[in-house]
Amino acid sequence: MPDSQPKEEKPAPTTEAKPEEKEAKAPEENGECNDKDTAEKQTEENGEKKAAVEQPPAKEMRAVVLTAFGGLKSIKVMKKPEPSVAEGEVLIRVKACGLGFQDLMARRGAIEATPKTPFILGFECAGEVEEIGEGVEGFAVGDKVVALPEYRAWAELVSVPQRLVFKMPEGMSFIDAAAITTNFLVAHILLFELGGISPGKSVLIHSAGGGVGLALTQLCQMVPDLTIFGVASKSKHEVLKDGHGIHHLLERGTDYVSEVRKVSPEGVDLFLDCMGGEECNRGYALIKPLGKYIIYGSSNMVSGESKSFFGLARSWWQVDKISPLKLFDDNKGVTGFNLRRLLHLQAGTSTINATVEKVFKLWSEGKIKPVVDSTWALEDISEAMQKMQDRKNIGKVMLDPAMEPKPKPATPAKGAKGSKDKDDKKKGGDAAKDEAKENNAASSGKEEEQNEEVNGEAGDGDAKENAS
Amino acid sequence: MPDSQPKEEKPAPTTEAKPEEKEAKAPEENGECNDKDTAEKQTEENGEKKAAVEQPPAKEMRAVVLTAFGGLKSIKVMKKPEPSVAEGEVLIRVKACGLGFQDLMARRGAIEATPKTPFILGFECAGEVEEIGEGVEGFAVGDKVVALPEYRAWAELVSVPQRLVFKMPEGMSFIDAAAITTNFLVAHILLFELGGISPGKSVLIHSAGGGVGLALTQLCQMVPDLTIFGVASKSKHEVLKDGHGIHHLLERGTDYVSEVRKVSPEGVDLFLDCMGGEECNRGYALIKPLGKYIIYGSSNMVSGESKSFFGLARSWWQVDKISPLKLFDDNKGVTGFNLRRLLHLQAGTSTINATVEKVFKLWSEGKIKPVVDSTWALEDISEAMQKMQDRKNIGKVMLDPAMEPKPKPATPAKGAKGSKDKDDKKKGGDAAKDEAKENNAASSGKEEEQNEEVNGEAGDGDAKENAS
Repeated sequence: MPDSQPKEEKPAPTTEAKPEEKEAKAPEENGECNDKDTAEKQTEENGEKKAAVEQPPAKEMRAVVLTAFGGLKSIKVMKKPEPSVAEGEVLIRVKACGLGFQDLMARRGAIEATPKTPFILGFECAGEVEEIGEGVEGFAVGDKVVALPEYRAWAELVSVPQRLVFKMPEGMSFIDAAAITTNFLVAHILLFELGGISPGKSVLIHSAGGGVGLALTQLCQMVPDLTIFGVASKSKHEVLKDGHGIHHLLERGTDYVSEVRKVSPEGVDLFLDCMGGEECNRGYALIKPLGKYIIYGSSNMVSGESKSFFGLARSWWQVDKISPLKLFDDNKGVTGFNLRRLLHLQAGTSTINATVEKVFKLWSEGKIKPVVDSTWALEDISEAMQKMQDRKNIGKVMLDPAMEPKPKPATPAKGAKGSKDKDDKKKGGDAAKDEAKENNAASSGKEEEQNEEVNGEAGDGDAKENAS
Repeated sequence: MPDSQPKEEKPAPTTEAKPEEKEAKAPEENGECNDKDTAEKQTEENGEKKAAVEQPPAKEMRAVVLTAFGGLKSIKVMKKPEPSVAEGEVLIRVKACGLGFQDLMARRGAIEATPKTPFILGFECAGEVEEIGEGVEGFAVGDKVVALPEYRAWAELVSVPQRLVFKMPEGMSFIDAAAITTNFLVAHILLFELGGISPGKSVLIHSAGGGVGLALTQLCQMVPDLTIFGVASKSKHEVLKDGHGIHHLLERGTDYVSEVRKVSPEGVDLFLDCMGGEECNRGYALIKPLGKYIIYGSSNMVSGESKSFFGLARSWWQVDKISPLKLFDDNKGVTGFNLRRLLHLQAGTSTINATVEKVFKLWSEGKIKPVVDSTWALEDISEAMQKMQDRKNIGKVMLDPAMEPKPKPATPAKGAKGSKDKDDKKKGGDAAKDEAKENNAASSGKEEEQNEEVNGEAGDGDAKENAS
């Protein structure tokens, strides 16, 4: 497990530094859990109950827990105390969860302000309101809702501040709600709020086969006379070439800029970039006068080297630092969009609410529909994540807490190790294989890093921090 | 006249270096004229006519000519050969011309790619089609049109490429056409095409008393529930405080950012900056997440030091150079808009055409109306420019080629000098005074520079390169 050590600048958790110690002492037992709703905390806070020796055991739920920053084997399905509902919060019984590239970054500790491990992963879910906190208005027990919490979504229950909870429209399934909300929220803001797209214009969509990519292509169909360029890895072209309204499908990793210029010599009106890094220069050069370049995430930050996320990111961006004088000369605009920061750190709630409403209305009118790649049991999370990491998904990857995990293979995991990971034992066959792969790679950190780089460069997908 | 020497990096024209020589040899006589339609050129190109000694004299027209880069006294109304109409061009008999801050910059040689002096000034005019060049479609002799040529608009006749000529709507006066087109074109693109303004948002308008500023406030009235902040110099507040729909009038040069924060603690959605320089930092900080900062010109470049336009501009901007990573973190966008480059150097014609059409439609519906500050004879150009330079105008400053110049004062200009400036002799009293002021300043270049700096800092107005 020291594989993750050379890749993170953040101080490695002590449980990570000595794997043996950590495995002997499961996170939920060693009191290091940072979830605010742990049974321990509740008991301590409640002075009356403290004295009672025979208190009833705290109710538990299943949850996908990140035990340490790093590879897939750091993720376990565990029993965790059920969360309580605080003032202004809504407690939700989770029926469906969505995965995004952001989760892969969180797993590696590659986004700012991640909690200390262990913590429950997940940024999006749908379910039924189980309980209402003090001061919450407009929600009732039994309401079907979708929620965009900061972590903790991949569990049977989650308590979420009201401002991050949205009522589902009549007739929408939980899977559809969890699949549609983040992707179309991002896509709608990019295209209309920030991109100002209008009839007759041209747009280039990166990672056109990813969750946001497919949401973008659907929303584009509502604008007459758009020219849509989609960049995706070759392996996705077969699926993408029909039925998605992409006029010009381009291959990721090739000189697609020249291809665009052949069709539209003066460039494109809107360039939607979720790759970052070198794409910035290419993207900026490809936009027309009065054109807009929007960077809404950077999968390069993850799939490339990840030794020092912020250091690396800044050096990448340095090349592309832009003078407003150049923007003035060029008649161009550069915009950043980061849903996570907007939701959790900035005052973006009114736009979020308005846009979620618009998205649900479009769904009700039958104008958009979520594209779900696959749905997995919580216990199959590693396999689900691996698929995203390999950029093999087309559309959204989902979790269903009620779903039965894949049957274990006849010859299960390796020796003593498996027996200690009691919460992980339901893991499916493919995931076990992946774990074996990661364990092998773990013997040489460099090797795994190279492996992931190849994955990142060869693949394509919902590659952004925001969402997928 | 060496006053302009220390301020321009561009090699000073020889006529400028030795004023005596220049005055003895009027630009139209020394063969240095760079207008493409000079009688000399035509004659040379026409070999047959070359032999004819008694050829009819080329028809002449009155035009506002910049004889050398520098102060107001470098501008003369002169007789120039009438332009011929080339392929793809429309010859227009000019009935009204508009002034913009851009003209002040051109006078000083402070915008890129200015022609060599002498040349005819002016970027906007309205008039009647006098002749149609080969290959021109959709225009007929007698059509009332507005045109946005690159220079040469301030004359009795101008020949303009068809793509820069727009038919006026029924019932619009020439003065209104020349006053409305550039300002509302800029304002419409800023607000809707680039700013994506929508109901419920807030916008901060710099130089709210200038031509574009007043166009912006008018267009803002069409969007429900906008909050409008207007920045203008104190002297304009009396006029601006009523009837322009500005909710919060702020004083230029004060800490208006704090004032905005008092009303809207989270900032504004759209910041329209035509001042540049230090405003960049303030403006960027004041926009909300998902907000847009648009820089559409920089009067600071003119009214501050002007020793080296581009060198200075870049050093100003350097402070504000922005990393896309910061935009991504902040959820913000920065956009540049430069109408002149869009019209003449970039392929922006389709947006221009569409927007001019929208603007004319709004005018026809009575939703917008031009604000004209004052109209002047060609011969009173110095006085008109001085008013803009002092930022004393509220709305557009216009020229009317048919207008009689102001009567000369009873005690005219100073001695021998006046008699040489034969084309300038109709100049009004105030302009003559201004010339005297400039001549005094000319004895100490530094002095004039300081004087203009004071003007720039104390005043306000349609302060941008693009237009006013």
